[in-house]
Amino acid sequence: MRNAFHDELDGIGTTLLQMTGLVKIAMNDATSALLTVDLTTAEKVIAADNVIDDIQHELDARTINLMARQQPVASDLRTLVTSLRMSADLERMGDLAHHVAKQARMRYPNSAVPAELVPTITAMGLVADKLIDKLSSVMEHRDTVRALEIETDDDEMDKLHRDLIGILLDDGWPHGIETAIDMTLLGRYYERFADHAVSISRRVYFLVTGEYSTN
Amino acid sequence: MRNAFHDELDGIGTTLLQMTGLVKIAMNDATSALLTVDLTTAEKVIAADNVIDDIQHELDARTINLMARQQPVASDLRTLVTSLRMSADLERMGDLAHHVAKQARMRYPNSAVPAELVPTITAMGLVADKLIDKLSSVMEHRDTVRALEIETDDDEMDKLHRDLIGILLDDGWPHGIETAIDMTLLGRYYERFADHAVSISRRVYFLVTGEYSTN
Repeated sequence: MRNAFHDELDGIGTTLLQMTGLVKIAMNDATSALLTVDLTTAEKVIAADNVIDDIQHELDARTINLMARQQPVASDLRTLVTSLRMSADLERMGDLAHHVAKQARMRYPNSAVPAELVPTITAMGLVADKLIDKLSSVMEHRDTVRALEIETDDDEMDKLHRDLIGILLDDGWPHGIETAIDMTLLGRYYERFADHAVSISRRVYFLVTGEYSTN
Repeated sequence: MRNAFHDELDGIGTTLLQMTGLVKIAMNDATSALLTVDLTTAEKVIAADNVIDDIQHELDARTINLMARQQPVASDLRTLVTSLRMSADLERMGDLAHHVAKQARMRYPNSAVPAELVPTITAMGLVADKLIDKLSSVMEHRDTVRALEIETDDDEMDKLHRDLIGILLDDGWPHGIETAIDMTLLGRYYERFADHAVSISRRVYFLVTGEYSTN
C-alpha cells in the first residue's frame, strides 16, 4: 500500500515536471514569436495554453483524490499540498506566456517590440528560460543550491525590467504611448513569470529544509 | 470529534472572512490614497500588507494541521483544499492593494492620477469595493446568485480597463510616457484584483454546486 502511494506521489511529480516542460516551450515560443514577428508561433502558444490548463485540472483532481484515499500525514501531506500550489503557479506561468504571445499577435504584421528594446526583451526571454531550466532541476532533484540561484536570476529579471522602464522614459523615446503601454505590460509579464518561478522554488526549498530561503 | 472538526472548519471560514475584510480596507485605502494624494494612508496600506501575509501563513498552517489530524474526505477535504486556494487569492489581492498604494507614494506630493483619469480610477475603486462586498457574502452564505453577479462586475472592471487604455491612447494625451506607464500598471492592478475575486467566487460556486460557473 505504501509503495502504491509513493508511486502515485512520483506520478504527480512527473506530471508537474511535464507541466514545467510545456511552460518552458510556451515562454520560449512566445518570446520567439514576439521577436521574429511570427504569427504562426504566436497562435500555437495561444492554442496550447488550454493543454496546460487541462493538465492542471486533471493533476489537482488526482492529488485531492490521493489525499482522500491515502490520508497522508506529515511530509507526504505537505508534499501534496505543495503540489497543488506548484500546479497553480505553473498554470499562471502558462497564462503569462499566453499573454506575451497575444501581444505578438495583436501587433502583427508589425513588431510589438521596437528595435531599442529588442536586446532587453531578448535578455528577459533568456533569463526566463534559465529560470525554468533551473526550476526543473530544483523540482526533479530537490536541488536547494539551484533553488537559491533562482533568487539571483530573479534579481537579474528585475534589473532588466527596470532597464526596460528606463528606456521607455528616455527623453528621446520615439514610439509614442501605445508602444510604451505594450512594453510596460510585456515587462510585467516577464517579471511575474520569474516571480512564480521563485515562488515554486521557495516551496521546494521549504519542503526539503523546513526553512524559508528568504523573506 | 465530528463537532470539534466542524468548529475548526468554521474557524477557518471566519479567518478567511477576516482576511477579506482586511483586503477590502486595504484596497479602499489604497484607492483613496491615490485619488486624494494622501501619503499617510498610502504608508498605512503598505505597512498593513504584512498583517494579511501573516494571517495567510497562520491560516494555511492551521488548515494543513487540520487535514493531518482529522483526515477529512469528500466535501470536507474539498473545502479545506479550497480554503488554501482562497487564502492565496486573498493574499495576492492584498499585494495588489499594496502595489496601488506604492504608486501613490512614489508620485507623492504629486498625484499619480491625472485629472482625465480620476473618474475611471474612481469607478475602478468602486467596482473593486462592490466585488469584495459580494465576495464576503458569497463566502459567508455560499451565495451562488451573488457568485454569478461577480462575473458581471468583473466584465464592468474589464470595460473600465479598456476605457483607461483608450484615454491613454487619445491623440491629445498630454501627460507623457511616465504617467502612461503608471496608469497602465494601475489599470492592470485593479483588473487583476477583480480576476482574483472571480477566482474565489468560482471556487465557492463549485463547492456548492459541483459545477463550474463558466469557462
